[in-house]
Amino acid sequence: MKAEILCVGTELLLGDIVNTNAQYLSKRLADLGIFVYHQSVVGDNSERLKEEFKAAFDRADIIITTGGLGPTPDDLTKETGAEYFNKKMILHEETLDKLKSYFIKTERDKLQGNNIKQAYFPEDSLILPNSHGTAPGCVIDENGKILIVLPGPPREMKPMFEDYVVPFLENYSNIVIQSKVLRICGIGEGLMAEQISDIMTENTNPTVAPYAKDWEVTLRITAKASTKEAANNLIIPVEDEIRQRLGLNIYGEGETSLEAVLGELLIKSNFTISTAESCTGGLIASKLVNYPGISSVFMEGAVTYSNDAKMRRLGVKSETLETFGAVSEETAREMAEGIAKTANTNIGLSTTGIAGPDGGTQEKPVGLVYVGLSINGITKTIKLQLSGSREMIRRRTTITALDWVRRELLKSNQ
Amino acid sequence: MKAEILCVGTELLLGDIVNTNAQYLSKRLADLGIFVYHQSVVGDNSERLKEEFKAAFDRADIIITTGGLGPTPDDLTKETGAEYFNKKMILHEETLDKLKSYFIKTERDKLQGNNIKQAYFPEDSLILPNSHGTAPGCVIDENGKILIVLPGPPREMKPMFEDYVVPFLENYSNIVIQSKVLRICGIGEGLMAEQISDIMTENTNPTVAPYAKDWEVTLRITAKASTKEAANNLIIPVEDEIRQRLGLNIYGEGETSLEAVLGELLIKSNFTISTAESCTGGLIASKLVNYPGISSVFMEGAVTYSNDAKMRRLGVKSETLETFGAVSEETAREMAEGIAKTANTNIGLSTTGIAGPDGGTQEKPVGLVYVGLSINGITKTIKLQLSGSREMIRRRTTITALDWVRRELLKSNQ
Repeated sequence: MKAEILCVGTELLLGDIVNTNAQYLSKRLADLGIFVYHQSVVGDNSERLKEEFKAAFDRADIIITTGGLGPTPDDLTKETGAEYFNKKMILHEETLDKLKSYFIKTERDKLQGNNIKQAYFPEDSLILPNSHGTAPGCVIDENGKILIVLPGPPREMKPMFEDYVVPFLENYSNIVIQSKVLRICGIGEGLMAEQISDIMTENTNPTVAPYAKDWEVTLRITAKASTKEAANNLIIPVEDEIRQRLGLNIYGEGETSLEAVLGELLIKSNFTISTAESCTGGLIASKLVNYPGISSVFMEGAVTYSNDAKMRRLGVKSETLETFGAVSEETAREMAEGIAKTANTNIGLSTTGIAGPDGGTQEKPVGLVYVGLSINGITKTIKLQLSGSREMIRRRTTITALDWVRRELLKSNQ
Repeated sequence: MKAEILCVGTELLLGDIVNTNAQYLSKRLADLGIFVYHQSVVGDNSERLKEEFKAAFDRADIIITTGGLGPTPDDLTKETGAEYFNKKMILHEETLDKLKSYFIKTERDKLQGNNIKQAYFPEDSLILPNSHGTAPGCVIDENGKILIVLPGPPREMKPMFEDYVVPFLENYSNIVIQSKVLRICGIGEGLMAEQISDIMTENTNPTVAPYAKDWEVTLRITAKASTKEAANNLIIPVEDEIRQRLGLNIYGEGETSLEAVLGELLIKSNFTISTAESCTGGLIASKLVNYPGISSVFMEGAVTYSNDAKMRRLGVKSETLETFGAVSEETAREMAEGIAKTANTNIGLSTTGIAGPDGGTQEKPVGLVYVGLSINGITKTIKLQLSGSREMIRRRTTITALDWVRRELLKSNQ
């Protein structure tokens, strides 16, 4: 069963509003196992709407429209649907009664010509009541082509879809869709795609699709079957194979975040942590604090932006700053050790770098960052050379640093 | 001139993400006087993409695509465009060089097969550089049909559109659009709209449109005319009137941020600042550090999440914590004074609150936050009762705190 979504409204074409209806309906149709290969937006124009009905019914069995059910003359979706199916528009008495009592109750306008329009529907159509507005929807179901007409405002459309369209569509779907999202960190989209490109291209059920955002990549494994269990069984071997190849690069699954995974790991390991940040300027602490349970393990953060603060707060030696500079492996090391010591935590995590846009030299260019990690007295450092804007460099450093702690904890737990 | 927007991506058809690109492009094309009668979304599928090119070019002169420029084999937009126009894909040396230096610099992945794909373009096409990612866009302009291919991620697409596509499209329009953005902080969208509702409804050229995001509101004043000067002259009186009504609530204009405005103000006033954060957990420090020039005035930040750290680092008295609790006016006051003293700065800024989702009581509910501000020895506190998620509460506290410092500095400068 294939469906298309057709949103009607000049306000969408002018960019006045974002089309959240298309997203909502697509997501819910995917849940129901109904494929959506196409979304369109057209204006309140009968000719273009009819052309779109024709094109969409050439490709699909179901069209779901939103919008164009209002009382004004340019609201034409129902009328154009009737024309397409060669149906007359007939008065629906029950809707008229409801409209009348609504207009008496609200005492807004009198029920006049324009509003009565909302009580007319294509003959033989199924009426979908609107519990949040005056415009009911309808379904025309003929010769294997189904037109589902819904109102535009999301607060009217969503309940109508859930209450009336979902039960209607469930009769037409014998497919269940299940999907699983794996969250990946520490390798880019390109390298990940290479490592699993055969899995991505060879599999059609389940499909494996990547999505990249900033420094993080997610992989969605989506399977279709006749039962939930069968769909999940299709996912398992593909997931296993991906996990085998990507290993520790997969930090979590489903709705989670790097800081939540790390937070849980810290609590499980019973390891406390403190941070000493220069170039990231509090971003790492702030990420950690995003995780509600963090207070039992995150003791303290220091944003030591000046050399003076690095020495006074963290005990970084002035010789170290003079000899190697604030952005150096040695300073990162002393910062990590210093914060772990003064905050009395198992782990000390530090950053120092040049986030730009100014301050770079040939020897130490913008994007050069050192991260220091001290775990129970053993300290390591890594050197990064990042690109992008000041904000990107700081965010990438943050993710890399948090991911490094995660990896080290997993290693030491093994 | 008619244009269509064609967004490519399976994640859109599955409803995983909302199509904000279509809205952005529609809005900007309307600004440029180019009509959009149709938006479509299709998946990463060469056949369906080609059919869509055909249908869209039957209706319009310009197609703007977003998405499908990534390094993976299912990214096909450029390739399908080349096929539609009967063009070969040829290597663009300049892009290859950039890709190489990017991959050498970041030392992430090696530049291999998949990524090199991003350096190939349809022959004779105009290359659109991508300053925020690895995938350049391109324009194929032939026989009155123009295909403009842009990347999917909004943070890459938008600057590419503004920097390269707008100047390209302006040749096809005889309208000049000018707009000015005013940035507002400290009053909500509703209250602001009330204060200027007559200006918003009465003006059609320029139009005045609000946009709210988190705790910040922007107002865009947009004028159309035949010359840049004439358009700007339409903006001036409307802007003056708005500034008169909103006063200090307008913190800046154009591409700036609260932290940049505050950073400049601190430098101008020659005032140093330090921060002591509990519930915001480094977010305030991190915002300040976003401003590149901040190092001369931002001395130090402390993220004192535990009571122990509040006492040890900031000198908050244990009686204060016992009597009034960590989330109290008194603690906020001692934190602000403590950090200003130990970091030896003019200004100390502190936060302490309950960000949730747990930890609230009837007396101190989730969302209760105290902000402390000590300026040259004079300390004030404010109490906030915020709503929203943990992250929202923390972000709103951060913006309110930074805005408060801005207002106090402006007052003391008067």
